[in-house]
Amino acid sequence: MPAETTDSLVSLSVNTIRGLAIDAVQKANTGHPGMPLGCAAMGYALFARHLVFDPEAPNWFNRDRFILSAGHGSMLLYSLLHLTGYAVTIEDLKSFRQFGSITPGHPENTLTPGVEMATGPLGQGFATGIGMAIAEEKLRNEFPGVVDHWTYAICSDGDLMEGVSHESASLAGHLQLGRVIYLYDSNRITIDGSTDLSFSEDVRLRFEAYGWQVLECDGMDVDAVDVAISDAKKDSRPSLIICDTTIGYGSPNKAGKSSSHGAALGEEEVKLTKQFLGIPVEPCFFVSDEVREHFLTLGWRHRTTRIESEAKLAEHPELLRRMKGQLPLNWEVEMPKFSEPLATRTASGKILNTIAEVLPELLGGSADLAESNCTTFHAYESFLNGNRDGRNINYGIREFAMGCAVNGMTLHGGIRGYGGTFLIFSDYMRPSIRLSALMETPSIFVFSHDSIGLGEDGPTHQPIEHLMSLRAMPHLRVFRPADGNETRTAWKVALESKHNPTAIVLTRQKLCALSEPDFRAAKGAYVLFEPETALDCILIGTGSEVEICMKAKEILASSGVNARVVSMPCWELFEEQSDVYRDEILPRGITNRVSVEAGATLGWSKWVCDKGKSIGIDKFGASAPATRIYQEYDLTAEKVVEAVLSYKS
Amino acid sequence: MPAETTDSLVSLSVNTIRGLAIDAVQKANTGHPGMPLGCAAMGYALFARHLVFDPEAPNWFNRDRFILSAGHGSMLLYSLLHLTGYAVTIEDLKSFRQFGSITPGHPENTLTPGVEMATGPLGQGFATGIGMAIAEEKLRNEFPGVVDHWTYAICSDGDLMEGVSHESASLAGHLQLGRVIYLYDSNRITIDGSTDLSFSEDVRLRFEAYGWQVLECDGMDVDAVDVAISDAKKDSRPSLIICDTTIGYGSPNKAGKSSSHGAALGEEEVKLTKQFLGIPVEPCFFVSDEVREHFLTLGWRHRTTRIESEAKLAEHPELLRRMKGQLPLNWEVEMPKFSEPLATRTASGKILNTIAEVLPELLGGSADLAESNCTTFHAYESFLNGNRDGRNINYGIREFAMGCAVNGMTLHGGIRGYGGTFLIFSDYMRPSIRLSALMETPSIFVFSHDSIGLGEDGPTHQPIEHLMSLRAMPHLRVFRPADGNETRTAWKVALESKHNPTAIVLTRQKLCALSEPDFRAAKGAYVLFEPETALDCILIGTGSEVEICMKAKEILASSGVNARVVSMPCWELFEEQSDVYRDEILPRGITNRVSVEAGATLGWSKWVCDKGKSIGIDKFGASAPATRIYQEYDLTAEKVVEAVLSYKS
Repeated sequence: MPAETTDSLVSLSVNTIRGLAIDAVQKANTGHPGMPLGCAAMGYALFARHLVFDPEAPNWFNRDRFILSAGHGSMLLYSLLHLTGYAVTIEDLKSFRQFGSITPGHPENTLTPGVEMATGPLGQGFATGIGMAIAEEKLRNEFPGVVDHWTYAICSDGDLMEGVSHESASLAGHLQLGRVIYLYDSNRITIDGSTDLSFSEDVRLRFEAYGWQVLECDGMDVDAVDVAISDAKKDSRPSLIICDTTIGYGSPNKAGKSSSHGAALGEEEVKLTKQFLGIPVEPCFFVSDEVREHFLTLGWRHRTTRIESEAKLAEHPELLRRMKGQLPLNWEVEMPKFSEPLATRTASGKILNTIAEVLPELLGGSADLAESNCTTFHAYESFLNGNRDGRNINYGIREFAMGCAVNGMTLHGGIRGYGGTFLIFSDYMRPSIRLSALMETPSIFVFSHDSIGLGEDGPTHQPIEHLMSLRAMPHLRVFRPADGNETRTAWKVALESKHNPTAIVLTRQKLCALSEPDFRAAKGAYVLFEPETALDCILIGTGSEVEICMKAKEILASSGVNARVVSMPCWELFEEQSDVYRDEILPRGITNRVSVEAGATLGWSKWVCDKGKSIGIDKFGASAPATRIYQEYDLTAEKVVEAVLSYKS
Repeated sequence: MPAETTDSLVSLSVNTIRGLAIDAVQKANTGHPGMPLGCAAMGYALFARHLVFDPEAPNWFNRDRFILSAGHGSMLLYSLLHLTGYAVTIEDLKSFRQFGSITPGHPENTLTPGVEMATGPLGQGFATGIGMAIAEEKLRNEFPGVVDHWTYAICSDGDLMEGVSHESASLAGHLQLGRVIYLYDSNRITIDGSTDLSFSEDVRLRFEAYGWQVLECDGMDVDAVDVAISDAKKDSRPSLIICDTTIGYGSPNKAGKSSSHGAALGEEEVKLTKQFLGIPVEPCFFVSDEVREHFLTLGWRHRTTRIESEAKLAEHPELLRRMKGQLPLNWEVEMPKFSEPLATRTASGKILNTIAEVLPELLGGSADLAESNCTTFHAYESFLNGNRDGRNINYGIREFAMGCAVNGMTLHGGIRGYGGTFLIFSDYMRPSIRLSALMETPSIFVFSHDSIGLGEDGPTHQPIEHLMSLRAMPHLRVFRPADGNETRTAWKVALESKHNPTAIVLTRQKLCALSEPDFRAAKGAYVLFEPETALDCILIGTGSEVEICMKAKEILASSGVNARVVSMPCWELFEEQSDVYRDEILPRGITNRVSVEAGATLGWSKWVCDKGKSIGIDKFGASAPATRIYQEYDLTAEKVVEAVLSYKS
């Protein structure tokens, strides 16, 4: 706490945050004033007395991370960023929630300096912070004295009600991530009214059960929050500080009520609130010179630390490379080439293990399916409390927490996070996949057991709609390789990606080796087989169904029908190619096209055209040996041949 | 406990369950032997001494519900069902995991008598049971002395690690669902090895934090489990019994190890295990006459109770109707007709409130967005501990638990459960939507704020890919009405459905009243506007974009282009119609087609054909007022007109 700060300046600073927040919400006539009014003191205590940051270098690698998990309170964050000197102007605050502004309704890391991640979908801020803290622990162990910071968040009732908070808190407790300090805005109000309607758990007991330190304080009192944070730092466990607050504090008619949560207070109530808080009613967006100077001083106070820290980083070129998200030169030559029949999950495991050493930034694991997903680094141990050298994360049966942790590790930098589970369980972590796409974070998700080909586990475990529903998601790349060599390409694409997350979709069952160890599949689709004479039809397959196409073209050839086989492991990459390339692979003139994929056919009409046919699965699977189900579900070369021959021009 | 049962008979019975389980897994050479070996005593204690059931009437309305949440242990359940006299034969056990058998890898309620729900996706058995218990509480309050039973489950570490167990346990504690008794198979082993790798939370403390009673016992000891269940019944809280077990018990080389979890033991190990358990090595699938008689006696013991209970039900025609899933005659005349501009969410709320009285089986609410989703019955209070008359469920910010609860209520019968949230958060509950579809349960999901039209909350809250990714899911009906009258149809379809879940997708923003209060939309798509002269093109819209189509056809008409407007609120219902009907709506000859939907275009090529165009959104949204975003995202009548006019035949 800077020596010159007086109690009244602190109070005025806190109320200035409040004033900016309610003014911006009022001007937009939409937003959430209640949370910033209640949490302004928490925000102030954190930014003024604990958070190590430099507004001039919002991406400084060793900054403390702060996540506003309760993202609807975005104006709290924007006010703090503005006041402390980030490139968020008063004009930006006045454009709150308007098209093209950097102050959207909920925070977005791609728009606003100082925003660590997109929040709003509840629970995910909480959970993603755990991933950031894992990255910090790992890097602090690798580069002691260089990486060394804290991860803070402000969380709401909603965050703690969401299931992912359980998964992540349990994981963080297990891993004893002592650099995590979360402030819980305990205001006893949800949108629907009092928490009595739906929330009566004992949060303290619950988090103690997870192995966290739990502290309590008056969240409206800067000094109390300050002391609690200092206490939290002394303990080696992750800390939850239960901050007792009043939602909508200062609003004479709405404080403590859900009516302050999600709508502008109204002009009269804004006036009354400002009067209560002792700040000028006019002009709006008022910041006194004294407060402005105070906050800017706070914003500068770690500049030397930051500059020294960056100098230290320069002495560690390996860390510098990793923090920049660059890969070592020629890293990909380490990857094995494949010529034997192999499940693509097995190929993936072999690839991971050969690149483990050259890419020390890789840190990941599986949601308790490590052997099945082939995600384990065999030369390394588990990353655990007491073993920060470990490079395998045992996420536990916590797919959603895993997805968020992967995002957090990747967002942190210096680490390339990945996580694996069965493709069917991508549903459990779907919100985190979407958030990685929205945040433009190159997270890597490994999904094995990618179709009915997994066999006897049956329809609860057999993905049908998953491929297509992931393809529908903007920015995400869904890569479903047909063999080991295409799996190399999948990993290359995933690792070289700077802004797109990648889902690598793998088989349980063995597949023939079909492709060359080049990286042609990186174009998303390519001609795997071309007949010698004039083309009659095109067979398009992905993953395990490419070999069905290859069998079908043989049968067709014996009837004098010339089929091209196109392997199309990644729609999104194919869409990124030029029209010329796409026309080369799928020439407009050839309308006898058949697609084959062991999943929902919805969407395939785009590639097969009106006259083509799509062979796929539009019902649930069945428990039986894989070969039997493929027969029963008409995923056979014979059915492909039938489809080709039934073509009507 | 029947008086004649000796300790040795109990022991032999438990070991017979074990023998059947490992034989079936061995014969299939795939499956999970470890769990049945560890939990056989728990299963026996429950079925022999507590569970009230009648194998002759597996759907008896007042049976105790038993859920094997750890669905991978399916052979435990199949063995118990077989032995107690359900229509599950030894031949069925021998067909474990084979195509067409009623003994799939994981339990499926649609295949096997006595299986209450599909389990395997972890956490959902736990969570769905909570819904069943809500239904029971509600019905016991409405029909005292008629409905009165318990809900049991066996859960695993995996169930408790999944986030949904948190959401559901917290909800169950809040609602004080005292008829819930869950047995937790605490074996300290997960697939990846010891729970030390990932799971160290204090389960007792955690559940006490939720307001549960927590008991502990030796899960390998039938008497201990029996006593614990009896104790659990005495308390008014939901109960978790931590049962200390050994996974793979009896297997000399695999007991207590993860190697016993997910693969057949091997012939030699099966032999050694049977020797250890003191049961005959040969023949396989052996059940002694004594054991068979004992179990069949157990299976019969509640028959009189069941018959008396059914007689009681006959005296309550209203409950009988509800248990049969029938609706009262002409219930739909209660629904309002609409002619004013209205958000479809508002129309939905009005419909719900007018049918509340005629359909007392409706029980639901929202995941803390009740006012936004318009899911509240205004004439009723909240369903809470101490107010079982309430008909609004405050699920809290727990979408996944809500989805599972809706499924559980609906599966229970007598109740039609529903739950609401924003469409974007359908991702959070997606696994439960899928399970409802797989279980053929007519659950109702209300998803409001269905597009960028929600405006300023921005891309974290604006669904893009959600409509299409839900449409990709087998069995689910996605209904996106264009106005109030189509919303009536959505509710009619949802409520009259017997086997398909329905997602009712609603706008935040006001829409023009476009359609008649008939139920034409029940065919999934229909001609909303037909030009008087020869048809040039077809505009296809859903939901809020139908009014864009209507505006576009006006502009087109002024240029002499005659456009038909097709409203297509539900793809799945349209696909169920005859070819003749579909051709009538979308005649093959008219290939100038334009679809308009504020979501991913993937999939629309199916309806617009090669020469048509799809106007939609294939990127993330933006925070801004709705009208502005629609402009910026080219969702305008002018762009539709442009698309029509750019047609090349």
